[in-house]
Amino acid sequence: MAPESLTLYQHRIEQQLELRMAALPQTAERLHQAMAYSLTNGGKRIRPFFVYACGSMLGVPLTQLDSAACAIECLHSYSLIHDDLPAMDNDDLRRGKPTCHKAFDEATAILAGDALQTLAFDILATAEGNLSAERKLKRISLLAKASGITGMCAGQAIDLAHTNQRTDLATLEQMHRLKTGALIECAVQLAYYSSELDCPATLHALTSFASALGLAFQVQDDILDIESDTIVLGKPQGSDCKANKLTYPALLGLEEAKVKAKQLYQDALAALSSLAYDTDELKAFAHYIIARKF
Amino acid sequence: MAPESLTLYQHRIEQQLELRMAALPQTAERLHQAMAYSLTNGGKRIRPFFVYACGSMLGVPLTQLDSAACAIECLHSYSLIHDDLPAMDNDDLRRGKPTCHKAFDEATAILAGDALQTLAFDILATAEGNLSAERKLKRISLLAKASGITGMCAGQAIDLAHTNQRTDLATLEQMHRLKTGALIECAVQLAYYSSELDCPATLHALTSFASALGLAFQVQDDILDIESDTIVLGKPQGSDCKANKLTYPALLGLEEAKVKAKQLYQDALAALSSLAYDTDELKAFAHYIIARKF
Repeated sequence: MAPESLTLYQHRIEQQLELRMAALPQTAERLHQAMAYSLTNGGKRIRPFFVYACGSMLGVPLTQLDSAACAIECLHSYSLIHDDLPAMDNDDLRRGKPTCHKAFDEATAILAGDALQTLAFDILATAEGNLSAERKLKRISLLAKASGITGMCAGQAIDLAHTNQRTDLATLEQMHRLKTGALIECAVQLAYYSSELDCPATLHALTSFASALGLAFQVQDDILDIESDTIVLGKPQGSDCKANKLTYPALLGLEEAKVKAKQLYQDALAALSSLAYDTDELKAFAHYIIARKF
Repeated sequence: MAPESLTLYQHRIEQQLELRMAALPQTAERLHQAMAYSLTNGGKRIRPFFVYACGSMLGVPLTQLDSAACAIECLHSYSLIHDDLPAMDNDDLRRGKPTCHKAFDEATAILAGDALQTLAFDILATAEGNLSAERKLKRISLLAKASGITGMCAGQAIDLAHTNQRTDLATLEQMHRLKTGALIECAVQLAYYSSELDCPATLHALTSFASALGLAFQVQDDILDIESDTIVLGKPQGSDCKANKLTYPALLGLEEAKVKAKQLYQDALAALSSLAYDTDELKAFAHYIIARKF
Protein backbone atom coordinates (compact mmCIF):
# COMPACT_ATOMS: atom_id res chain seq x y z
CA MET A 1 0.00 0.00 0.00
CA ALA A 2 1.17 3.50 -0.78
CA PRO A 3 2.31 5.55 2.22
CA GLU A 4 -0.18 8.23 3.32
CA SER A 5 2.29 10.99 2.56
CA LEU A 6 2.35 9.92 -1.10
CA THR A 7 -1.34 10.79 -1.43
CA LEU A 8 -0.74 14.05 0.42
CA TYR A 9 2.12 15.07 -1.84
CA GLN A 10 0.20 13.92 -4.92
CA HIS A 11 -2.63 16.31 -4.02
CA ARG A 12 -0.16 19.10 -3.44
CA ILE A 13 1.65 18.66 -6.75
CA GLU A 14 -1.63 18.39 -8.70
CA GLN A 15 -2.78 21.69 -7.22
CA GLN A 16 0.58 23.34 -7.78
CA LEU A 17 0.76 22.26 -11.41
CA GLU A 18 -2.82 23.40 -12.04
CA LEU A 19 -2.09 26.81 -10.53
CA ARG A 20 1.03 27.24 -12.64
CA MET A 21 -0.70 26.16 -15.85
CA ALA A 22 -3.63 28.52 -15.11
CA ALA A 23 -1.18 31.40 -14.73
CA LEU A 24 0.20 30.93 -18.26
CA PRO A 25 -1.21 32.92 -21.18
CA GLN A 26 -3.53 31.03 -23.50
CA THR A 27 -2.34 32.77 -26.67
CA ALA A 28 -1.67 29.37 -28.18
CA GLU A 29 -4.72 27.60 -26.76
CA ARG A 30 -4.20 24.15 -28.23
CA LEU A 31 -0.58 24.07 -27.08
CA HIS A 32 -1.68 25.08 -23.59
CA GLN A 33 -4.31 22.31 -23.59
CA ALA A 34 -1.77 19.71 -24.70
CA MET A 35 0.65 20.74 -21.94
CA ALA A 36 -2.11 20.60 -19.31
CA TYR A 37 -3.40 17.28 -20.67
CA SER A 38 -0.02 15.62 -20.30
CA LEU A 39 0.84 17.25 -16.98
CA THR A 40 -2.40 16.14 -15.33
CA ASN A 41 -2.93 12.63 -16.64
CA GLY A 42 -2.65 10.78 -13.38
CA GLY A 43 1.02 9.95 -13.03
CA LYS A 44 2.31 8.53 -9.76
CA ARG A 45 4.30 11.74 -9.09
CA ILE A 46 7.28 9.81 -7.85
CA ARG A 47 9.78 12.58 -8.53
CA PRO A 48 7.76 15.25 -6.68
CA PHE A 49 7.38 12.74 -3.84
CA PHE A 50 11.16 12.47 -3.57
CA VAL A 51 11.45 16.26 -3.51
CA TYR A 52 8.77 16.75 -0.87
CA ALA A 53 9.63 13.76 1.32
CA CYS A 54 13.40 14.32 1.35
CA GLY A 55 13.00 18.08 1.71
CA SER A 56 10.56 17.71 4.63
CA MET A 57 12.88 15.24 6.29
CA LEU A 58 15.65 17.86 6.10
CA GLY A 59 13.35 20.50 7.59
CA VAL A 60 12.61 22.49 4.45
CA PRO A 61 9.08 24.02 4.39
CA LEU A 62 6.85 22.56 1.63
CA THR A 63 6.39 26.04 0.15
CA GLN A 64 10.13 26.11 -0.51
CA LEU A 65 9.92 22.73 -2.28
CA ASP A 66 6.98 23.43 -4.61
CA SER A 67 9.11 24.94 -7.36
CA ALA A 68 11.50 21.98 -7.47
CA ALA A 69 8.62 19.47 -7.36
CA CYS A 70 6.81 21.24 -10.21
CA ALA A 71 9.94 21.69 -12.30
CA ILE A 72 10.98 18.06 -12.13
CA GLU A 73 7.46 16.88 -12.96
CA CYS A 74 7.30 19.24 -15.98
CA LEU A 75 10.63 17.86 -17.11
CA HIS A 76 9.44 14.27 -16.65
CA SER A 77 6.15 14.99 -18.42
CA TYR A 78 7.99 16.46 -21.44
CA SER A 79 10.15 13.35 -21.66
CA LEU A 80 7.12 11.06 -21.69
CA ILE A 81 5.45 13.07 -24.46
CA HIS A 82 8.54 12.89 -26.66
CA ASP A 83 9.29 9.23 -25.83
CA ASP A 84 5.76 8.28 -26.92
CA LEU A 85 6.10 9.94 -30.37
CA PRO A 86 5.86 7.75 -33.50
CA ALA A 87 9.56 8.30 -34.26
CA MET A 88 10.48 7.15 -30.73
CA ASP A 89 8.51 4.41 -28.93
CA ASN A 90 5.33 4.98 -30.95
CA ASP A 91 2.94 4.43 -28.05
CA ASP A 92 -0.80 5.09 -28.37
CA LEU A 93 -1.59 4.77 -24.68
CA ARG A 94 -0.05 6.24 -21.54
CA ARG A 95 -1.61 5.41 -18.18
CA GLY A 96 -4.69 4.11 -19.99
CA LYS A 97 -5.30 7.36 -21.88
CA PRO A 98 -4.36 8.37 -25.43
CA THR A 99 -0.80 9.72 -25.60
CA CYS A 100 -0.39 13.43 -26.32
CA HIS A 101 0.17 13.04 -30.06
CA LYS A 102 -2.92 10.79 -30.28
CA ALA A 103 -5.15 13.15 -28.27
CA PHE A 104 -3.83 16.20 -30.19
CA ASP A 105 -1.41 15.82 -33.09
CA GLU A 106 2.26 15.15 -33.54
CA ALA A 107 3.36 18.76 -34.06
CA THR A 108 1.46 19.90 -30.98
CA ALA A 109 2.94 17.05 -28.95
CA ILE A 110 6.49 17.98 -29.94
CA LEU A 111 5.82 21.62 -29.01
CA ALA A 112 4.08 20.68 -25.75
CA GLY A 113 7.13 18.68 -24.72
CA ASP A 114 9.43 21.51 -25.71
CA ALA A 115 7.42 24.09 -23.80
CA LEU A 116 7.16 21.89 -20.70
CA GLN A 117 10.93 21.58 -20.62
CA THR A 118 11.23 25.37 -20.85
CA LEU A 119 8.61 25.80 -18.14
CA ALA A 120 10.63 23.59 -15.79
CA PHE A 121 13.60 25.94 -16.00
CA ASP A 122 11.45 29.05 -15.76
CA ILE A 123 9.84 27.73 -12.58
CA LEU A 124 13.25 27.19 -10.97
CA ALA A 125 14.61 30.54 -12.17
CA THR A 126 11.67 32.49 -10.75
CA ALA A 127 11.18 30.44 -7.57
CA GLU A 128 10.10 32.55 -4.62
CA GLY A 129 11.13 31.99 -1.04
CA ASN A 130 14.21 32.57 1.05
CA LEU A 131 16.56 30.30 -0.83
CA SER A 132 19.78 32.00 -1.90
CA ALA A 133 20.28 32.83 -5.58
CA GLU A 134 23.37 30.58 -5.56
CA ARG A 135 21.30 27.58 -4.47
CA LYS A 136 18.64 28.41 -7.05
CA LEU A 137 21.32 28.36 -9.76
CA LYS A 138 22.63 25.06 -8.42
CA ARG A 139 19.14 23.53 -8.68
CA ILE A 140 18.87 24.65 -12.32
CA SER A 141 22.23 23.22 -13.25
CA LEU A 142 21.39 19.92 -11.47
CA LEU A 143 18.14 19.58 -13.40
CA ALA A 144 19.88 20.40 -16.68
CA LYS A 145 22.68 17.89 -16.11
CA ALA A 146 20.21 15.17 -15.12
CA SER A 147 18.04 15.68 -18.18
CA GLY A 148 20.25 16.61 -21.15
CA ILE A 149 23.03 14.79 -22.95
CA THR A 150 24.71 14.03 -19.61
CA GLY A 151 21.54 12.31 -18.36
CA MET A 152 18.07 11.44 -19.56
CA CYS A 153 18.50 12.29 -23.26
CA ALA A 154 21.65 10.15 -23.45
CA GLY A 155 19.73 7.29 -21.82
CA GLN A 156 16.92 7.54 -24.34
CA ALA A 157 19.49 7.62 -27.18
CA ILE A 158 21.15 4.46 -25.83
CA ASP A 159 17.71 2.84 -25.49
CA LEU A 160 16.86 3.64 -29.12
CA ALA A 161 20.26 2.46 -30.35
CA HIS A 162 19.81 -0.94 -28.68
CA THR A 163 16.19 -1.67 -29.58
CA ASN A 164 16.06 -4.96 -31.47
CA GLN A 165 19.62 -5.72 -30.37
CA ARG A 166 20.87 -8.28 -27.91
CA THR A 167 23.08 -6.52 -25.38
CA ASP A 168 24.66 -6.94 -21.94
CA LEU A 169 23.70 -6.06 -18.39
CA ALA A 170 26.19 -3.19 -18.20
CA THR A 171 24.58 -1.40 -21.14
CA LEU A 172 21.08 -2.00 -19.78
CA GLU A 173 22.10 -0.58 -16.43
CA GLN A 174 23.84 2.42 -17.95
CA MET A 175 20.74 3.10 -20.02
CA HIS A 176 18.44 3.04 -16.98
CA ARG A 177 20.82 5.05 -14.81
CA LEU A 178 20.82 7.79 -17.43
CA LYS A 179 17.26 7.55 -18.74
CA THR A 180 15.41 7.52 -15.41
CA GLY A 181 17.97 7.19 -12.62
CA ALA A 182 19.55 10.58 -13.25
CA LEU A 183 16.26 12.42 -12.79
CA ILE A 184 15.36 10.47 -9.64
CA GLU A 185 18.76 11.24 -8.13
CA CYS A 186 18.18 14.82 -9.18
CA ALA A 187 14.90 14.89 -7.23
CA VAL A 188 16.63 14.22 -3.90
CA GLN A 189 19.46 16.58 -4.78
CA LEU A 190 16.92 19.31 -5.56
CA ALA A 191 15.45 18.69 -2.09
CA TYR A 192 18.90 19.05 -0.53
CA TYR A 193 19.69 22.22 -2.45
CA SER A 194 16.30 23.66 -1.49
CA SER A 195 17.82 23.93 1.97
CA GLU A 196 20.90 25.87 3.01
CA LEU A 197 22.46 22.72 4.52
CA ASP A 198 26.16 22.18 4.00
CA CYS A 199 26.59 18.47 4.68
CA PRO A 200 28.08 16.45 1.79
CA ALA A 201 27.51 13.16 3.67
CA THR A 202 23.75 13.78 3.73
CA LEU A 203 23.73 14.64 0.02
CA HIS A 204 25.74 11.52 -0.73
CA ALA A 205 23.47 9.22 1.31
CA LEU A 206 20.32 10.63 -0.28
CA THR A 207 21.81 10.24 -3.75
CA SER A 208 22.77 6.61 -3.07
CA PHE A 209 19.26 5.94 -1.77
CA ALA A 210 17.67 7.46 -4.89
CA SER A 211 20.11 5.73 -7.19
CA ALA A 212 19.36 2.26 -5.80
CA LEU A 213 15.63 2.84 -5.54
CA GLY A 214 15.44 4.35 -9.02
CA LEU A 215 17.01 1.25 -10.52
CA ALA A 216 14.82 -0.99 -8.34
CA PHE A 217 11.82 0.83 -9.79
CA GLN A 218 12.97 0.05 -13.33
CA VAL A 219 13.63 -3.63 -12.63
CA GLN A 220 10.20 -3.86 -10.98
CA ASP A 221 8.69 -2.14 -14.04
CA ASP A 222 10.19 -4.79 -16.29
CA ILE A 223 8.86 -7.54 -14.01
CA LEU A 224 5.38 -6.01 -13.90
CA ASP A 225 5.38 -5.70 -17.66
CA ILE A 226 5.51 -9.50 -17.80
CA GLU A 227 3.30 -10.31 -14.81
CA SER A 228 0.52 -7.70 -14.87
CA ASP A 229 -2.37 -7.42 -17.26
CA THR A 230 -3.26 -4.44 -19.45
CA ILE A 231 -6.08 -3.04 -17.30
CA VAL A 232 -3.99 -2.64 -14.17
CA LEU A 233 -0.91 -1.35 -16.00
CA GLY A 234 -2.56 1.07 -18.44
CA LYS A 235 -0.49 -0.18 -21.34
CA PRO A 236 -0.66 -3.46 -23.27
CA GLN A 237 0.92 -6.19 -21.11
CA GLY A 238 4.21 -7.44 -22.50
CA SER A 239 4.50 -4.32 -24.67
CA ASP A 240 8.21 -3.91 -23.90
CA CYS A 241 8.71 -7.51 -24.96
CA LYS A 242 6.90 -7.02 -28.24
CA ALA A 243 8.91 -3.94 -29.09
CA ASN A 244 12.08 -5.94 -28.40
CA LYS A 245 13.08 -3.55 -25.69
CA LEU A 246 15.96 -4.32 -23.37
CA THR A 247 14.60 -5.64 -20.05
CA TYR A 248 16.06 -7.24 -16.92
CA PRO A 249 13.90 -10.40 -17.15
CA ALA A 250 14.99 -10.83 -20.78
CA LEU A 251 18.66 -10.67 -19.74
CA LEU A 252 18.56 -12.31 -16.31
CA GLY A 253 15.41 -14.42 -16.36
CA LEU A 254 12.34 -13.50 -14.28
CA GLU A 255 13.52 -15.00 -10.99
CA GLU A 256 16.98 -13.42 -11.12
CA ALA A 257 15.36 -10.10 -11.95
CA LYS A 258 13.27 -10.38 -8.78
CA VAL A 259 16.41 -11.09 -6.75
CA LYS A 260 18.03 -8.03 -8.31
CA ALA A 261 15.06 -5.82 -7.41
CA LYS A 262 15.18 -6.99 -3.77
CA GLN A 263 18.93 -6.41 -3.56
CA LEU A 264 18.52 -2.86 -4.82
CA TYR A 265 15.76 -2.30 -2.27
CA GLN A 266 18.16 -3.43 0.47
CA ASP A 267 20.85 -1.10 -0.90
CA ALA A 268 18.38 1.79 -0.74
CA LEU A 269 17.56 1.05 2.91
CA ALA A 270 21.26 0.73 3.75
CA ALA A 271 21.92 4.19 2.29
CA LEU A 272 19.25 5.65 4.58
CA SER A 273 20.73 4.06 7.70
CA SER A 274 23.58 6.57 7.86
CA LEU A 275 21.23 9.55 8.02
CA ALA A 276 20.57 11.30 11.33
CA TYR A 277 17.02 12.15 10.28
CA ASP A 278 13.64 10.44 10.57
CA THR A 279 13.70 8.22 7.47
CA ASP A 280 10.42 6.33 8.10
CA GLU A 281 8.60 8.05 5.23
CA LEU A 282 11.36 7.23 2.76
CA LYS A 283 11.54 3.62 3.98
CA ALA A 284 7.79 3.20 3.54
CA PHE A 285 8.06 4.63 0.04
CA ALA A 286 10.90 2.29 -0.86
CA HIS A 287 8.78 -0.64 0.27
CA TYR A 288 5.83 0.61 -1.75
CA ILE A 289 7.99 0.91 -4.89
CA ILE A 290 9.22 -2.64 -4.66
CA ALA A 291 5.89 -4.18 -3.61
CA ARG A 292 3.65 -2.31 -6.07
CA LYS A 293 1.57 -4.19 -8.62
CA PHE A 294 1.20 -1.31 -11.10
CA MET B 1 27.93 44.06 -46.76
CA ALA B 2 28.11 42.56 -43.31
CA PRO B 3 29.81 44.72 -40.65
CA GLU B 4 33.31 43.54 -39.71
CA SER B 5 32.24 42.89 -36.15
CA LEU B 6 29.72 40.32 -37.39
CA THR B 7 32.55 38.17 -38.77
CA LEU B 8 34.50 38.68 -35.55
CA TYR B 9 31.61 37.59 -33.36
CA GLN B 10 30.80 34.72 -35.71
CA HIS B 11 34.32 33.35 -35.22
CA ARG B 12 34.03 33.77 -31.50
CA ILE B 13 30.69 31.97 -31.20
CA GLU B 14 31.85 29.11 -33.48
CA GLN B 15 34.86 28.57 -31.24
CA GLN B 16 32.82 28.84 -28.06
CA LEU B 17 30.23 26.36 -29.27
CA GLU B 18 32.92 23.92 -30.39
CA LEU B 19 34.65 24.12 -27.01
CA ARG B 20 31.40 23.51 -25.15
CA MET B 21 30.42 20.57 -27.36
CA ALA B 22 33.89 19.05 -26.98
CA ALA B 23 33.53 19.26 -23.20
CA LEU B 24 30.38 17.11 -23.21
CA PRO B 25 30.58 13.33 -22.68
CA GLN B 26 30.19 11.20 -25.79
CA THR B 27 28.28 8.40 -24.03
CA ALA B 28 25.56 8.78 -26.62
CA GLU B 29 27.80 9.38 -29.62
CA ARG B 30 25.19 9.73 -32.33
CA LEU B 31 23.19 12.20 -30.24
CA HIS B 32 26.35 14.22 -29.65
CA GLN B 33 27.10 14.22 -33.39
CA ALA B 34 23.58 15.37 -34.23
CA MET B 35 23.79 18.24 -31.75
CA ALA B 36 27.19 19.31 -33.09
CA TYR B 37 26.00 18.97 -36.70
CA SER B 38 23.09 21.31 -36.13
CA LEU B 39 24.99 23.77 -33.96
CA THR B 40 27.78 24.22 -36.50
CA ASN B 41 25.99 24.28 -39.81
CA GLY B 42 26.83 27.81 -40.82
CA GLY B 43 24.06 29.94 -39.41
CA LYS B 44 24.34 33.71 -39.49
CA ARG B 45 24.63 33.83 -35.68
CA ILE B 46 22.38 36.85 -35.46
CA ARG B 47 21.34 36.24 -31.86
CA PRO B 48 24.93 35.88 -30.59
CA PHE B 49 25.75 39.04 -32.56
CA PHE B 50 23.07 40.93 -30.64
CA VAL B 51 24.45 39.61 -27.35
CA TYR B 52 28.07 40.48 -28.16
CA ALA B 53 27.43 43.80 -29.89
CA CYS B 54 24.97 45.17 -27.32
CA GLY B 55 27.01 43.85 -24.41
CA SER B 56 30.24 45.37 -25.75
CA MET B 57 28.49 48.67 -26.31
CA LEU B 58 27.47 48.62 -22.64
CA GLY B 59 31.05 47.88 -21.58
CA VAL B 60 30.65 44.20 -20.70
CA PRO B 61 33.78 42.09 -21.43
CA LEU B 62 33.25 39.49 -24.18
CA THR B 63 34.19 36.71 -21.74
CA GLN B 64 31.17 37.69 -19.66
CA LEU B 65 28.93 37.47 -22.76
CA ASP B 66 30.03 34.06 -24.08
CA SER B 67 27.59 32.08 -21.95
CA ALA B 68 24.59 34.15 -23.05
CA ALA B 69 25.68 34.03 -26.71
CA CYS B 70 26.12 30.25 -26.58
CA ALA B 71 22.89 29.64 -24.69
CA ILE B 72 20.73 31.62 -27.08
CA GLU B 73 22.32 29.95 -30.11
CA CYS B 74 21.73 26.48 -28.60
CA LEU B 75 18.13 27.46 -28.00
CA HIS B 76 17.76 28.76 -31.56
CA SER B 77 19.43 25.68 -33.00
CA TYR B 78 17.04 23.36 -31.10
CA SER B 79 14.07 25.29 -32.47
CA LEU B 80 15.29 24.91 -36.06
CA ILE B 81 15.77 21.14 -35.65
CA HIS B 82 12.25 20.70 -34.31
CA ASP B 83 10.66 23.11 -36.80
CA ASP B 84 12.19 21.14 -39.67
CA LEU B 85 10.71 17.79 -38.50
CA PRO B 86 8.24 15.98 -40.78
CA ALA B 87 5.37 16.67 -38.35
CA MET B 88 6.21 20.39 -38.40
CA ASP B 89 7.49 22.14 -41.54
CA ASN B 90 8.89 18.94 -43.08
CA ASP B 91 12.00 20.55 -44.55
CA ASP B 92 14.78 18.48 -46.13
CA LEU B 93 17.27 21.32 -46.42
CA ARG B 94 18.53 23.95 -44.00
CA ARG B 95 21.20 26.40 -45.17
CA GLY B 96 21.87 24.14 -48.16
CA LYS B 97 22.58 21.06 -46.05
CA PRO B 98 20.34 18.13 -45.07
CA THR B 99 18.25 18.94 -42.02
CA CYS B 100 19.09 17.07 -38.81
CA HIS B 101 16.42 14.37 -39.24
CA LYS B 102 17.61 13.80 -42.83
CA ALA B 103 21.30 13.63 -41.91
CA PHE B 104 20.55 11.38 -38.89
CA ASP B 105 17.03 10.16 -38.16
CA GLU B 106 13.85 11.56 -36.71
CA ALA B 107 14.26 10.17 -33.19
CA THR B 108 17.82 11.47 -32.97
CA ALA B 109 16.72 14.87 -34.26
CA ILE B 110 13.99 15.15 -31.62
CA LEU B 111 16.51 14.22 -28.91
CA ALA B 112 19.18 16.54 -30.29
CA GLY B 113 16.74 19.44 -30.12
CA ASP B 114 15.70 18.47 -26.61
CA ALA B 115 19.28 18.20 -25.40
CA LEU B 116 20.29 21.50 -27.02
CA GLN B 117 17.50 23.26 -25.16
CA THR B 118 18.72 21.70 -21.91
CA LEU B 119 22.29 22.69 -22.71
CA ALA B 120 21.23 26.31 -23.14
CA PHE B 121 19.95 26.45 -19.58
CA ASP B 122 22.91 24.55 -18.20
CA ILE B 123 25.30 27.02 -19.82
CA LEU B 124 23.52 29.95 -18.18
CA ALA B 125 23.26 28.22 -14.80
CA THR B 126 26.96 27.41 -14.68
CA ALA B 127 28.25 30.63 -16.28
CA GLU B 128 31.52 31.77 -14.83
CA GLY B 129 32.57 35.37 -14.32
CA ASN B 130 31.75 38.12 -11.89
CA LEU B 131 28.08 38.46 -12.65
CA SER B 132 25.87 38.24 -9.56
CA ALA B 133 23.80 35.09 -9.02
CA GLU B 134 20.65 37.25 -9.14
CA ARG B 135 21.52 38.47 -12.64
CA LYS B 136 22.34 34.94 -13.73
CA LEU B 137 18.88 33.82 -12.58
CA LYS B 138 17.32 36.76 -14.41
CA ARG B 139 19.05 35.71 -17.64
CA ILE B 140 17.68 32.17 -17.28
CA SER B 141 14.15 33.35 -16.69
CA LEU B 142 14.38 35.74 -19.66
CA LEU B 143 15.52 32.95 -21.97
CA ALA B 144 12.77 30.66 -20.70
CA LYS B 145 10.03 33.27 -21.14
CA ALA B 146 11.24 34.11 -24.63
CA SER B 147 11.29 30.51 -25.78
CA GLY B 148 8.44 28.63 -24.11
CA ILE B 149 4.67 29.01 -24.25
CA THR B 150 5.02 32.74 -23.56
CA GLY B 151 7.28 33.12 -26.60
CA MET B 152 8.76 31.04 -29.38
CA CYS B 153 6.73 27.85 -28.85
CA ALA B 154 3.48 29.83 -28.88
CA GLY B 155 4.60 31.50 -32.12
CA GLN B 156 5.30 28.16 -33.76
CA ALA B 157 1.90 26.86 -32.57
CA ILE B 158 0.16 29.88 -34.11
CA ASP B 159 2.15 29.38 -37.31
CA LEU B 160 1.07 25.72 -37.53
CA ALA B 161 -2.55 26.58 -36.74
CA HIS B 162 -2.71 29.10 -39.61
CA THR B 163 -0.92 27.15 -42.32
CA ASN B 164 -3.23 26.82 -45.32
CA GLN B 165 -5.47 29.49 -43.84
CA ARG B 166 -6.04 33.04 -44.99
CA THR B 167 -5.52 35.34 -42.02
CA ASP B 168 -4.90 38.99 -41.11
CA LEU B 169 -1.85 41.16 -40.53
CA ALA B 170 -2.36 41.22 -36.75
CA THR B 171 -2.11 37.44 -36.49
CA LEU B 172 0.93 37.34 -38.79
CA GLU B 173 2.64 39.98 -36.69
CA GLN B 174 1.79 38.27 -33.41
CA MET B 175 3.14 35.02 -34.82
CA HIS B 176 6.46 36.60 -35.82
CA ARG B 177 6.81 38.57 -32.58
CA LEU B 178 6.46 35.35 -30.62
CA LYS B 179 8.19 32.90 -32.97
CA THR B 180 11.36 34.88 -33.65
CA GLY B 181 10.95 38.37 -32.17
CA ALA B 182 10.86 37.17 -28.58
CA LEU B 183 14.24 35.48 -28.85
CA ILE B 184 15.84 38.45 -30.61
CA GLU B 185 14.56 40.80 -27.92
CA CYS B 186 15.87 38.30 -25.41
CA ALA B 187 19.35 38.52 -26.96
CA VAL B 188 19.69 42.24 -26.18
CA GLN B 189 18.14 41.77 -22.76
CA LEU B 190 20.66 39.01 -22.01
CA ALA B 191 23.38 41.48 -22.96
CA TYR B 192 21.92 44.06 -20.58
CA TYR B 193 21.59 41.57 -17.72
CA SER B 194 25.17 40.39 -18.33
CA SER B 195 26.12 43.76 -16.89
CA GLU B 196 25.27 45.13 -13.45
CA LEU B 197 23.69 48.25 -15.01
CA ASP B 198 20.51 49.56 -13.46
CA CYS B 199 19.05 51.75 -16.19
CA PRO B 200 15.53 50.77 -17.33
CA ALA B 201 15.63 53.36 -20.15
CA THR B 202 18.62 51.62 -21.73
CA LEU B 203 16.92 48.22 -21.44
CA HIS B 204 13.77 49.66 -22.97
CA ALA B 205 15.59 51.28 -25.90
CA LEU B 206 17.56 48.13 -26.67
CA THR B 207 14.38 46.04 -26.55
CA SER B 208 12.57 48.42 -28.93
CA PHE B 209 15.55 48.29 -31.29
CA ALA B 210 15.59 44.48 -31.27
CA SER B 211 11.82 44.26 -31.60
CA ALA B 212 11.71 46.46 -34.71
CA LEU B 213 14.79 44.91 -36.28
CA GLY B 214 13.59 41.38 -35.53
CA LEU B 215 10.36 42.01 -37.37
CA ALA B 216 12.22 43.75 -40.21
CA PHE B 217 14.33 40.61 -40.52
CA GLN B 218 11.20 38.49 -40.92
CA VAL B 219 9.61 40.76 -43.51
CA GLN B 220 12.89 40.77 -45.41
CA ASP B 221 13.00 36.97 -45.17
CA ASP B 222 9.56 36.77 -46.77
CA ILE B 223 10.65 39.16 -49.52
CA LEU B 224 13.85 37.19 -50.19
CA ASP B 225 11.87 33.98 -50.35
CA ILE B 226 10.14 35.40 -53.41
CA GLU B 227 13.06 37.23 -54.97
CA SER B 228 16.10 35.00 -54.39
CA ASP B 229 16.95 31.73 -56.00
CA THR B 230 17.61 28.40 -54.29
CA ILE B 231 21.41 28.46 -54.47
CA VAL B 232 21.81 31.76 -52.65
CA LEU B 233 19.12 31.04 -50.06
CA GLY B 234 19.94 27.43 -49.24
CA LYS B 235 16.32 26.36 -49.42
CA PRO B 236 14.01 25.98 -52.41
CA GLN B 237 12.96 29.46 -53.58
CA GLY B 238 9.30 30.17 -52.94
CA SER B 239 9.15 27.31 -50.43
CA ASP B 240 7.09 29.35 -47.95
CA CYS B 241 4.67 30.09 -50.77
CA LYS B 242 4.32 26.45 -51.74
CA ALA B 243 3.65 25.39 -48.18
CA ASN B 244 0.94 28.06 -47.99
CA LYS B 245 2.74 29.77 -45.16
CA LEU B 246 1.65 33.17 -43.96
CA THR B 247 3.93 35.85 -45.43
CA TYR B 248 4.00 39.64 -45.59
CA PRO B 249 4.12 39.80 -49.42
CA ALA B 250 1.11 37.44 -49.57
CA LEU B 251 -0.89 39.74 -47.29
CA LEU B 252 0.43 43.17 -48.31
CA GLY B 253 1.80 42.62 -51.80
CA LEU B 254 5.55 42.70 -52.53
CA GLU B 255 5.91 46.50 -52.77
CA GLU B 256 4.02 47.20 -49.55
CA ALA B 257 6.08 44.55 -47.80
CA LYS B 258 9.24 46.41 -48.86
CA VAL B 259 7.83 49.65 -47.47
CA LYS B 260 7.03 47.86 -44.22
CA ALA B 261 10.60 46.50 -43.93
CA LYS B 262 12.04 50.00 -44.44
CA GLN B 263 9.70 51.49 -41.85
CA LEU B 264 10.76 48.91 -39.29
CA TYR B 265 14.40 49.65 -40.09
CA GLN B 266 13.73 53.34 -39.37
CA ASP B 267 12.00 52.41 -36.11
CA ALA B 268 15.05 50.40 -35.09
CA LEU B 269 17.36 53.35 -35.75
CA ALA B 270 15.02 55.69 -33.86
CA ALA B 271 15.18 53.42 -30.81
CA LEU B 272 18.99 53.63 -30.85
CA SER B 273 18.99 57.43 -31.00
CA SER B 274 18.06 57.75 -27.31
CA LEU B 275 21.09 55.76 -26.17
CA ALA B 276 24.14 57.52 -24.73
CA TYR B 277 26.46 54.86 -26.12
CA ASP B 278 28.34 54.36 -29.37
CA THR B 279 25.65 52.70 -31.50
CA ASP B 280 27.57 52.61 -34.82
CA GLU B 281 27.99 48.84 -34.73
CA LEU B 282 24.29 48.25 -34.14
CA LYS B 283 23.36 50.74 -36.86
CA ALA B 284 25.64 48.99 -39.36
CA PHE B 285 24.09 45.68 -38.42
CA ALA B 286 20.56 47.01 -38.86
CA HIS B 287 21.50 48.19 -42.33
CA TYR B 288 23.01 44.83 -43.16
CA ILE B 289 19.84 43.04 -42.06
CA ILE B 290 17.63 45.11 -44.28
CA ALA B 291 19.97 45.18 -47.28
CA ARG B 292 20.97 41.49 -47.24
CA LYS B 293 20.28 39.26 -50.20
CA PHE B 294 20.33 35.92 -48.33
